[in-house]
Amino acid sequence: MQLFYQPDIMKGSHFLTEEESKHCIKVLRHSVGDTLDVVDGSGAKFKVRITEAHAKKTLFDVISHQRKEELPYYIHIGIAPTKQIERTEWFLEKAIEIGVDEISFFFGRHSERKNINLERMQKKAVSAMKQSLKYQLPIIKLYQDLPSLISHVPEKQSKYIGYVDFDNPLQLKEAAQAKENSIVLIGPEGDFNEEELKLALSKGFKKVGLGQSRLRTETAGLVACHTLNLINS
Amino acid sequence: MQLFYQPDIMKGSHFLTEEESKHCIKVLRHSVGDTLDVVDGSGAKFKVRITEAHAKKTLFDVISHQRKEELPYYIHIGIAPTKQIERTEWFLEKAIEIGVDEISFFFGRHSERKNINLERMQKKAVSAMKQSLKYQLPIIKLYQDLPSLISHVPEKQSKYIGYVDFDNPLQLKEAAQAKENSIVLIGPEGDFNEEELKLALSKGFKKVGLGQSRLRTETAGLVACHTLNLINS
Repeated sequence: MQLFYQPDIMKGSHFLTEEESKHCIKVLRHSVGDTLDVVDGSGAKFKVRITEAHAKKTLFDVISHQRKEELPYYIHIGIAPTKQIERTEWFLEKAIEIGVDEISFFFGRHSERKNINLERMQKKAVSAMKQSLKYQLPIIKLYQDLPSLISHVPEKQSKYIGYVDFDNPLQLKEAAQAKENSIVLIGPEGDFNEEELKLALSKGFKKVGLGQSRLRTETAGLVACHTLNLINS
Repeated sequence: MQLFYQPDIMKGSHFLTEEESKHCIKVLRHSVGDTLDVVDGSGAKFKVRITEAHAKKTLFDVISHQRKEELPYYIHIGIAPTKQIERTEWFLEKAIEIGVDEISFFFGRHSERKNINLERMQKKAVSAMKQSLKYQLPIIKLYQDLPSLISHVPEKQSKYIGYVDFDNPLQLKEAAQAKENSIVLIGPEGDFNEEELKLALSKGFKKVGLGQSRLRTETAGLVACHTLNLINS
């Protein structure tokens, strides 16, 4: 199945963007009368029929739509972008494939990378969503530092911080519960510094391990995401 | 911590290979008398002292050694190489980081890719092992097709085949047990064909799902690997 993306379909935008139109008409060679599946990234999928097969702005009529089932849990990963940005893009793609509701990037005190192209990440997210046949695009945000991310975490979210600490036997697998609205923070290559850890603990975050292995930042993010999915599956 | 690799250290090869020597002496600027950590990829780590700091063949004396704890489980992933080989390399790196004992590549009937550079994969495996501070290199093998892989699976291995089948509610998470010696088969982009599935079922493999999402080959491989690690952690 091939999905197309039009975020404003509910607001009456019954056309494909230039990029999507080109792919639809030039590459897949669709024509008037063909039906397509279009998602809006907010949890709805539409069956539409092409009324004008234009390679820059394909028009369509909506035939029917369905909403994705509301899930009883919410997975939020707060992660510091990696030095090699491909690793963060990889995390983003894989997390969306496996299932994630929100990704918050932040620059840690030990982060070597102090910038990220959020627009590029959004684009990557759209293709990952389409590829994995999902209707919902995760919320993707950027915070300049950990305190600013933490100040935006809702009180009712269960809060975890991935931290390698051999004195602390608590694993995310044991700490997290099914049907939780939860956030896991993953530090940069140089990990969180003491101040950041202290702040998180003072704001109700629990330190958790992510298994027995030393993991890179992007692997830790994915492992946290998959662990929460498994607990809820 | 920085690990070096010398597979034949037990057999008396008390030197670093050319590549490792160069990294040790030229990049890290080690000199005579410095101590290093060297692993043999078979579960042992050695503390050694440099006796000749040669950039092509660094010599050392072994001071002490320790063996890694034997784990009560064994994780074997049989996976078809992906069309874009980077995705398979990524799977290899991440599986080693998370923990895997054996990776068997095979070409499925629907595989678009019909070749793989095993030597390159071995090299990638060595760097992933060193990076994640492990002492053990997974066994990496190649089979020309699924029947040949299946004929080499030991009888006592618990056998699973990842297969998207909405009539079959069994998930790997439920099917697999802790302390098992297990294998999970992951098909190529075009999935297994009916004949391959039939063969696997006739040889005692159980069809399992890997969650609610449609996953790419390499993501499915990693999800299977992480699921088995979580069950055993």
